Amino acid sequence: MANQQLTSAPLPDVFYALGDPTRLAIVGELGRGPASVSALAAPFTMALPSFMKHLSVLERSGVIRSQKVGRVRTCELVPKTLSLAHSWLAEQRALWEARSDRMAGFVEHLHQEDLPHEQRKRKV
Amino acid sequence: MANQQLTSAPLPDVFYALGDPTRLAIVGELGRGPASVSALAAPFTMALPSFMKHLSVLERSGVIRSQKVGRVRTCELVPKTLSLAHSWLAEQRALWEARSDRMAGFVEHLHQEDLPHEQRKRKV
Repeated sequence: MANQQLTSAPLPDVFYALGDPTRLAIVGELGRGPASVSALAAPFTMALPSFMKHLSVLERSGVIRSQKVGRVRTCELVPKTLSLAHSWLAEQRALWEARSDRMAGFVEHLHQEDLPHEQRKRKV
Repeated sequence: MANQQLTSAPLPDVFYALGDPTRLAIVGELGRGPASVSALAAPFTMALPSFMKHLSVLERSGVIRSQKVGRVRTCELVPKTLSLAHSWLAEQRALWEARSDRMAGFVEHLHQEDLPHEQRKRKV
């Protein structure tokens, strides 16, 4: 955990930012390319200030970044941040799969121990 | 999004459950195998009721499950739930990588258009 806390976007903040249906939908939409705040807000019925708060959580966590040109603020994904979350989950998956394999091996070993001697020899 | 909301563990709830340093550390610990509540709580300085609330968030989201035998409650990961989050991030990654490739192709195409006719033919 320690090394992840030293990065610019701490992993819990990234997961927290994704932990809301509106914010998850925004991330899904930005996966198709950068978009203006008004285009992003259009499908939602919530008031703009509430919507802006969601964007702010996403931006603080480093999941998105935005830039204002004239009167238009455009948002885009920061793939590197989502990669951090993806990599962590991939690591966890590798860990538990390795453990499942060890468990399966252990159960197989127990099963072999239970077999009568002759049968055990045939299986081996 | 719609199909994900129909699953037993909605994706935003899973990300929300992971969106806290204590809960993320618990998930990391359970990656090594099932553990009792007291063993999980030992490294944390927080009061047990606060710790139990974190376990409760993880359990409600389907990230972990627990079982009480006698006086001991044992927790374990539910790999299927974390797989859901992992798959979603993998899909997002595939989307933005495809988009980056298309962008790179487009820029290359523009570059070709800029080249003098003779040079363009040699490159093609």
